[in-house]
Amino acid sequence: MTLNRRIVLAAHPDGAPKETDFRLEEGPLPSPGDGEVLLRTIYFSLDPYMRSRMNEAGAGYAPGVELGAVMPAGGVSEVVESRAAGVAPGDFVNSFTGWQTHSTARAGGSMRRIDPANAPVSTAVGVLGMPGMTAYMGLLRIGQPKEGETVVVSAASGAVGAVVGQIARIKGCRVVGIAGAKEKCDYVVDELGFDACVSHRDPDLAGSLAGACPDGIDVYFENVGGPVFQAVLPLLNPFARVPVCGLIAQYNAKPGDPPSGPAAVTDLMRASLTKRLLIRGFIVYDFAEHAEAFHSDMGEWVRTGRVRYREDVVEGIENAPRAFMGLLEGRNFGKLLVRVAPDPTRA
Amino acid sequence: MTLNRRIVLAAHPDGAPKETDFRLEEGPLPSPGDGEVLLRTIYFSLDPYMRSRMNEAGAGYAPGVELGAVMPAGGVSEVVESRAAGVAPGDFVNSFTGWQTHSTARAGGSMRRIDPANAPVSTAVGVLGMPGMTAYMGLLRIGQPKEGETVVVSAASGAVGAVVGQIARIKGCRVVGIAGAKEKCDYVVDELGFDACVSHRDPDLAGSLAGACPDGIDVYFENVGGPVFQAVLPLLNPFARVPVCGLIAQYNAKPGDPPSGPAAVTDLMRASLTKRLLIRGFIVYDFAEHAEAFHSDMGEWVRTGRVRYREDVVEGIENAPRAFMGLLEGRNFGKLLVRVAPDPTRA
Repeated sequence: MTLNRRIVLAAHPDGAPKETDFRLEEGPLPSPGDGEVLLRTIYFSLDPYMRSRMNEAGAGYAPGVELGAVMPAGGVSEVVESRAAGVAPGDFVNSFTGWQTHSTARAGGSMRRIDPANAPVSTAVGVLGMPGMTAYMGLLRIGQPKEGETVVVSAASGAVGAVVGQIARIKGCRVVGIAGAKEKCDYVVDELGFDACVSHRDPDLAGSLAGACPDGIDVYFENVGGPVFQAVLPLLNPFARVPVCGLIAQYNAKPGDPPSGPAAVTDLMRASLTKRLLIRGFIVYDFAEHAEAFHSDMGEWVRTGRVRYREDVVEGIENAPRAFMGLLEGRNFGKLLVRVAPDPTRA
Repeated sequence: MTLNRRIVLAAHPDGAPKETDFRLEEGPLPSPGDGEVLLRTIYFSLDPYMRSRMNEAGAGYAPGVELGAVMPAGGVSEVVESRAAGVAPGDFVNSFTGWQTHSTARAGGSMRRIDPANAPVSTAVGVLGMPGMTAYMGLLRIGQPKEGETVVVSAASGAVGAVVGQIARIKGCRVVGIAGAKEKCDYVVDELGFDACVSHRDPDLAGSLAGACPDGIDVYFENVGGPVFQAVLPLLNPFARVPVCGLIAQYNAKPGDPPSGPAAVTDLMRASLTKRLLIRGFIVYDFAEHAEAFHSDMGEWVRTGRVRYREDVVEGIENAPRAFMGLLEGRNFGKLLVRVAPDPTRA
């Protein structure tokens, strides 16, 4: 008898998550209702936003995960049983699976069919899915890069950052990444075509970034926050745009922790006024009405090799918590996925 | 023989400006060249932005005033002598006069004819001029208030704030002002129709503001910065917009002064992400292409009494420095103007 294996939230983390904040459980398979399908997860995605959801207060735009509830995730699944018209066993779909081996989903909801002939199915939670769409919307709708401008993106080799930089290159911009490890910096320059990359571990980050951005910064795509933003701020040009997508350097902060950067809100506000900055937080769903343009553009860019991607695949659901803790410390290299069942399309 | 009297920058201020940072000078009248006019100033405007221009570094969007140079200002003048087609002695114009009794201007530049039949000529540097246009552009182009939303504006009885609140009322918003003195709060509620006003001197500003904004804040029109913004931040709703127009509470800060608010940039960035905030600095000239819409709309609103205004007129150029120092401390009540010659339209 097949059981569902799932990882639930055992405790709200105090600072950085620990193994004991998660718990692996087994239970009966969920049962699809009328109009629903039973799904076997192949991959689920690990993304930084999940850290905010682990707090009791949630992430602002979404409530916190309750203790004992399954950890949230988008995933790629194969349909095992269908009680919905138009979806058949053997079909592949992208849906909110959570961190578990089986789930149910309602046809006509946010579940989306995937055609494995177009691209590896795993890309549905990567470059062709939520992270890719996040990059596309934040850069194009908020950043609005113009040819010849300088675009800087932090977490540059990550699932979102790597796509931001490549789209900015397609739009004719000078692109400078900020990453940690040297191999990540080399990767975004040598394999993704960024013009330069600076390590946030560089003791003279501000100076190195200034050197890499001789004409200043017109768009800063913010994925990390903390001290990196402090280094970026003085380099922003008049009318610079700052899409705020993530603040991974701040997610593990505890209430009452001293701020991780020296600058005060008054300084940022002064810069926003004197430089006429645009700073705007967003999540991908804010731009849902442009999803079709994303699928069309990004499908072509991936097919023609103009946008490349790298996956970091962890095997086995039991390794998801450790992999997630590593993600928050930048230990992954590429889009982080957990594979919980064989991928039949890569047989 | 008529002399030009003017106030020049004697020293870059160290913190709050002092009388000795200014110097009154007399000299020969300027001489209009071909295509230029000689102007006798009637009113010039005093505005907070001038404080930034007094710094050696300038304001970011404009250079600093050089020592010995005339202080900058927009003004209303009567044409004394014309060497330009289409402008005749006796005409009234709005131009960059500076703090002086006479100036020259080129026809076809930024000089604008004023018809005294439409409105008192002084409004050309107030509700129908730069401050009014600043309010109009920042609120409508960035704030984009929707009916039923809550709009909060600081420096609410000032030249910009008073107009912001009245336009927001016209757009069907709940409008809450923040001002200092009780008489200013009473004025914006009783005479301008704001729904409520809170004093920034209230020891429980955060609590009082929360009470006045039971549905949170959708647009915060920022004129002051500092601790007031700290009280506003927690009340901002998801997707709130923050046009950053001025930071009068911060202008007199000296380099190295401790920040005037406790919050760090990391907190603001977190709020921008979780609430999907839009924060955008601007100056009025960023929206120059919408000037015609402003003149049309505001002209009608003032004519029909839907937008009202109050002027605080100081007599005599020699009193301009003291009046300007008072402006930075909120001692004016209404649009601050210096009258340096009789206004023939109010004879």
